[in-house]
Amino acid sequence: MSQSAYSSLEKRYNRLALLGEVGGILHWDSAAIMPVGGAKARGEQIAELKAISHNLIVAPETADLIEAASQQTNLNPWQKSNLELIRRHWIRANAIPEDLVISLSKACSNCETVWRDARAENDFKKILPYMETVLKLVKLSGTAIAEKLNLSLYDTLLDEFEPGARSAQIDPIFDDLTDWLPNFLDDVLIKQNTRPMIHTPKGPFDIDIQRELGIQLMMALGFDFDYGRLDISLHPFCGGTPDDVRITTRYDQTDFTTALMGVLHETGHAMYERGLPSDYSRQPVGKALGMSMHESQSLLIEMQVCRSQEFLEYAAPLVRLAFNGKGPAWEPDNLYRLYTKIERGFIRVDADEVTYPAHVILRYQLEKALVNDEIKLADLPGAWNQKMQDLLGITPPSDTLGCLQDIHWYDGAWGYFPTYTLGAMTAAQIFQAANLGDPNINTGIPKGNFKPLMAWLRSNIHSSGSLITASELLTKATGRPLDPQVFKDHLRRRYLL
Amino acid sequence: MSQSAYSSLEKRYNRLALLGEVGGILHWDSAAIMPVGGAKARGEQIAELKAISHNLIVAPETADLIEAASQQTNLNPWQKSNLELIRRHWIRANAIPEDLVISLSKACSNCETVWRDARAENDFKKILPYMETVLKLVKLSGTAIAEKLNLSLYDTLLDEFEPGARSAQIDPIFDDLTDWLPNFLDDVLIKQNTRPMIHTPKGPFDIDIQRELGIQLMMALGFDFDYGRLDISLHPFCGGTPDDVRITTRYDQTDFTTALMGVLHETGHAMYERGLPSDYSRQPVGKALGMSMHESQSLLIEMQVCRSQEFLEYAAPLVRLAFNGKGPAWEPDNLYRLYTKIERGFIRVDADEVTYPAHVILRYQLEKALVNDEIKLADLPGAWNQKMQDLLGITPPSDTLGCLQDIHWYDGAWGYFPTYTLGAMTAAQIFQAANLGDPNINTGIPKGNFKPLMAWLRSNIHSSGSLITASELLTKATGRPLDPQVFKDHLRRRYLL
Repeated sequence: MSQSAYSSLEKRYNRLALLGEVGGILHWDSAAIMPVGGAKARGEQIAELKAISHNLIVAPETADLIEAASQQTNLNPWQKSNLELIRRHWIRANAIPEDLVISLSKACSNCETVWRDARAENDFKKILPYMETVLKLVKLSGTAIAEKLNLSLYDTLLDEFEPGARSAQIDPIFDDLTDWLPNFLDDVLIKQNTRPMIHTPKGPFDIDIQRELGIQLMMALGFDFDYGRLDISLHPFCGGTPDDVRITTRYDQTDFTTALMGVLHETGHAMYERGLPSDYSRQPVGKALGMSMHESQSLLIEMQVCRSQEFLEYAAPLVRLAFNGKGPAWEPDNLYRLYTKIERGFIRVDADEVTYPAHVILRYQLEKALVNDEIKLADLPGAWNQKMQDLLGITPPSDTLGCLQDIHWYDGAWGYFPTYTLGAMTAAQIFQAANLGDPNINTGIPKGNFKPLMAWLRSNIHSSGSLITASELLTKATGRPLDPQVFKDHLRRRYLL
Repeated sequence: MSQSAYSSLEKRYNRLALLGEVGGILHWDSAAIMPVGGAKARGEQIAELKAISHNLIVAPETADLIEAASQQTNLNPWQKSNLELIRRHWIRANAIPEDLVISLSKACSNCETVWRDARAENDFKKILPYMETVLKLVKLSGTAIAEKLNLSLYDTLLDEFEPGARSAQIDPIFDDLTDWLPNFLDDVLIKQNTRPMIHTPKGPFDIDIQRELGIQLMMALGFDFDYGRLDISLHPFCGGTPDDVRITTRYDQTDFTTALMGVLHETGHAMYERGLPSDYSRQPVGKALGMSMHESQSLLIEMQVCRSQEFLEYAAPLVRLAFNGKGPAWEPDNLYRLYTKIERGFIRVDADEVTYPAHVILRYQLEKALVNDEIKLADLPGAWNQKMQDLLGITPPSDTLGCLQDIHWYDGAWGYFPTYTLGAMTAAQIFQAANLGDPNINTGIPKGNFKPLMAWLRSNIHSSGSLITASELLTKATGRPLDPQVFKDHLRRRYLL
């Protein structure tokens, strides 16, 4: 009987996971290929799936099964962790009623749809009422959950994307970065000026060729196209399901470098998804850890590996061949300088790894203040521009280049942003440990042999699923908890030496 | 209270319709773009959605609501029809248990996946055990429903695709065609030999250009790409949802004609979906009628309109321009002869409108015999080839060109085939009535003006949804019930005069 409680719970979560997979495909579809007229219906479809999932969780039987499973003494460590994750998931879901699930989901879909126009038209006023509705519902739902978890509202939101993370731990890390960054950036820019001139490869670069090249490098990294796709979307992402991982990019005929590196970044996410423990693929314990660990896997591939001199020694000849490139622009050294160029810019997704934390800190501070009613949403554009001036010394000339640039807040993802920089730090620390763990990793890269790297990541990170927490896994894999110094050392080594 | 019973029922069916829309997108995705490795998980996702839908229907509250709503005296005609359709839907669902829903759905997904290989490899033995499982479950489920509906097993299956249709009505129609067809076909082939030689346009035909041309003609017919897409799949179909209609085709670089006409055929389906009454778009009464009426809409566009001399007068210059064609092959007269060429062939989807009924009658007779245990599935290849010889005087050289060619049986669609020929007859009858109803329809076609046609169809067919039965609608729109003579007259006029 008690064994069957846990089994029944697993069965219920298998059903939830299937609904989640369906949602993953619908989300990809919306972003990549859905015609505009389908948006309203799609929002309703997604809200409905969420409501059905919600009802499966909050049904009284789920609580009974959790209670009964907790009495079982025969659970293995995976099952024990799974039960704890289920309990946590149940507490969150149970705090909010079905109609709030539906209204929040629809508000996000609507707001995201309008935001696309508002951003294109540089019209913050257009999106403001929709965004206010989203934030109001995010706060309503977050407050209800916060009471159950005994957390602050912001930590409750953060905890959804990064289980266990607390702003009290993030604040000192980000404060330290805020102090450290301006001088470091000045030094980097001075140093950069002493380096040889960067030659920009001249286009146009045929999009089919860009795509083929991306596929070639994805496959070199280990991506299996029997279990995934590469497509186009306005905002690149990695979605789909574990057996059908779908990454997207956007191409620019005048510049191949951004799409190519974007594809490699998303491949890092995809390899994490593909490396998760398949025995538990439809249970919470078999899923990826929070967004920091996920972002660490994409940034490890992009920033640590693919923007390195070693990788570009391997890739430069392939890139040159693909585009029939001639001259100094196509040399590995030049491509390395191009791919590590540092610049103060307005757009987060185009930012280099040195200025990126400033973009994240700005959003982290603003979203905390907005969630805590310390500033009003109507005042966001001004507050954004002021912070941009404070942190990077530049002021966006438009909201399109300012507070309208990112999808997250408009789509309901409040509490997400800090995971980008936590992920960058985690990536640096994991890559350092990987190289110490297997010297073949670094020697393989210039030869295009990524098998040692992927084997290490699969064994030390991916296959762990959510068996232990992100912070435990980082400690286990690298020998210590998150240490921002490793990230700073990486930047210093790459940009100042 | 009693008003609220009907409203609650509508709400429940709104939820079911949303799940159906999700299934529509997943189905399209599987056929058009899913990587092969995703097939197993996709089968489980679809089975799960079906199980959830099933449970929503068979929940005791649904029966209570139907009962209570039946007492309401304040329902308008749409609501009354809707309630009847819901009742019928409920009876079907309630006859079978959830585990049969799931096992049938998974069996169909598995069988369809294996069938793709079996067909390519001409290996009927490979698919036989999977097909046996599908047929066994189809019969198990059909028998349970048949008892509730007091119908024969075959009529129960047929009735799912074509509500109200009975084999007792189809048999005499098909028997008459079986008698009539051989001599008619001989006459047509003799007559064809007296006509000027057909010039085949010489390729290769760039696939991007084929696609652009298809889009141009789709738009001319009224397809709005804000609410739909055109993609590629092995088996062309029209799917998606009413606000996001997705049609597919397959291109051949050496022959543009098939894909182009395929696109126009699917556009006929799509226009029906887009013309359904939006006020009831998520209720059974707002859905399309059975498959005969659906097929009539695609065949009306393809066979009646687009393969006509009038249409090709409009389209030939566009086709010639697109492919930069030169010479007599690109003249409207020649394209008309090409698009109305009659030939005994093995493949149903490539068949012309004269030989097509033979393909359907073969499948109709075989599926009845298989469902009724009059022949064994293992004997299907021989039975198929014998019937092909009897009906068209040719014997397929392989099962790939014989009983392995169509997806239907392998995917669980037993009882579907007769609707193709019923649809062809319906199309002829509706198009005749439309032309009588508005003379601008026929005069518009050579000028590429399809607005009168689409307005007539929307007003007389599409906007009726499922308010009345297919047979009632046909009578209302054309003044009489299905009259096969109209179809025969059409063939005689086009091919013998």
